[in-house]
Amino acid sequence: MAKQAMDRLIEAVTEKQNPTIFGIDTRYEYLPNTRPLGEKWIEEGMEEIWAFNRTLIDALHEIVPAVKVQVAYYEMYGVPGMEVFYKTIRYAKEMGLFVVADAKRNDIGPTASAYASAFLGETQLGEHTMHAFPSDMVTVNPYLGDDGIVPFTEEAKAHGKGIFVLVKTSNPSSGLFQDLSVEGKPLYYRVAENVEKWGSELIGEYGYSSVGAVVGATYPTQGKQLRDDFPSVYFLVPGYGAQGATAQDLVGCFDVKGQGAIVNASRSLLCAYKKHPRENIVDATRTEAENMKQDLLKAIGGRIERK
Amino acid sequence: MAKQAMDRLIEAVTEKQNPTIFGIDTRYEYLPNTRPLGEKWIEEGMEEIWAFNRTLIDALHEIVPAVKVQVAYYEMYGVPGMEVFYKTIRYAKEMGLFVVADAKRNDIGPTASAYASAFLGETQLGEHTMHAFPSDMVTVNPYLGDDGIVPFTEEAKAHGKGIFVLVKTSNPSSGLFQDLSVEGKPLYYRVAENVEKWGSELIGEYGYSSVGAVVGATYPTQGKQLRDDFPSVYFLVPGYGAQGATAQDLVGCFDVKGQGAIVNASRSLLCAYKKHPRENIVDATRTEAENMKQDLLKAIGGRIERK
Repeated sequence: MAKQAMDRLIEAVTEKQNPTIFGIDTRYEYLPNTRPLGEKWIEEGMEEIWAFNRTLIDALHEIVPAVKVQVAYYEMYGVPGMEVFYKTIRYAKEMGLFVVADAKRNDIGPTASAYASAFLGETQLGEHTMHAFPSDMVTVNPYLGDDGIVPFTEEAKAHGKGIFVLVKTSNPSSGLFQDLSVEGKPLYYRVAENVEKWGSELIGEYGYSSVGAVVGATYPTQGKQLRDDFPSVYFLVPGYGAQGATAQDLVGCFDVKGQGAIVNASRSLLCAYKKHPRENIVDATRTEAENMKQDLLKAIGGRIERK
Repeated sequence: MAKQAMDRLIEAVTEKQNPTIFGIDTRYEYLPNTRPLGEKWIEEGMEEIWAFNRTLIDALHEIVPAVKVQVAYYEMYGVPGMEVFYKTIRYAKEMGLFVVADAKRNDIGPTASAYASAFLGETQLGEHTMHAFPSDMVTVNPYLGDDGIVPFTEEAKAHGKGIFVLVKTSNPSSGLFQDLSVEGKPLYYRVAENVEKWGSELIGEYGYSSVGAVVGATYPTQGKQLRDDFPSVYFLVPGYGAQGATAQDLVGCFDVKGQGAIVNASRSLLCAYKKHPRENIVDATRTEAENMKQDLLKAIGGRIERK
């Protein structure tokens, strides 16, 4: 049987002593020193984004354990953008990084299976088999219930992959539905109960399952309660930095060993060159990533233990 | 100001006297008479799917007013699949059809804006502007609240486009979260209240807004209640045929003029050639589409009036 995805992530985090996931949400506007685009402007623009992603993966692959690639920022550039998305996840994987496709996919039955094939499994085409957008994990939206999740957990089980299910998102209006009270508990808590259940057959050797939860750093009290009540559920945590959450806000998302959560950083790393203008782009990105690593490590007690 | 997307859909439905939306969810396995794939098997397979989609759009464009293209079935074939998705929506548009991208996208702030640009608006790339996957409407998942919806409605407002928000989905387990009781009303009803609100500035001349709702035909009682309580919310209705709902189950989703809902048919049309083996593929598909049209028309009283 394939190793559990979450075990692989936990080992990578422990080895690098860094619970940071680098969010490769590259917009053309973020690139430094772009030249005017010529006649083949789409190809040229995509080539520049791809080169930038490569540079940053090269800069960070020894510091961070994982990347999260937000599909929206590639889909908005159409088919050529999706080609860059594909090349980026493949390259990150080649460089030894754990890859999360942030796609928030959701559908039912055979359609959910098609998405699961695209990101976690394989697609049959006649006699042949292809891997559309091969990732270690994909983010999934729970609104459709079991029919929207089980096709993903089945694929995860078969291929040693996993999913992160949206539970409590980091945005200001996440409460509109997620905080609605359902028999004394907020909806997001009911979702978390199901996340625990969906992952019950995918628990790895460190006690965490390969069905994790997205929990925004901007809601520290809720994060702490979810951490305490769902010890087998690993968190993907957006909201640090640009969205305003500090390392201190995140502490409650981690367990006593410093495990249980990985914290996303996108813009702060993509645009580190602006914050450290006296360094070249590689050094600037590494400086920023090292600063974040130390900031997180300090907050969670200085050391991450495997178990 | 651009015409409201929902007005364009209502006019097309009325003109063709047909509340059917053709779901182009093509899997390679659905194709008739496929030849063994050669060395360039991905390209050959995609070429066959694209040719099949063209044949069916040619067959149906005078019968149905709209198509719904499910992104999952193209994404599972990777970048070459997304190229077929792009060509399919462009061709459907060229043939005068109203195009709904069934993508169920969801994210927050700038990321939701990136998705909205991809499907409804335009993407800036340096000095240039591109249209990634140009559609009339896109399906959206509401779990993230206002921050996940407003970027889409803003883009819809600017470009005469629209969205269908998941409210009560057609699958057996849709109730896991959607039916949870929130202060005396199920969650899906609370979502519908917000759908009405999100669409309040996008109401067209026939009284429906360009923010519609996905309401499964498999839940006729709920569909009827939503129709009665939210007269400005137009429904996209999956579940007819393959998922077991009959025309009679759908009646409650329509208003007294026979407006207010469009009913999806995917597999029954894609695989009509299997059901009518004595006809060629074009005739078989038309026969099936005409049968469905008559079935729906009869159930809703024989005639669709514009207002």
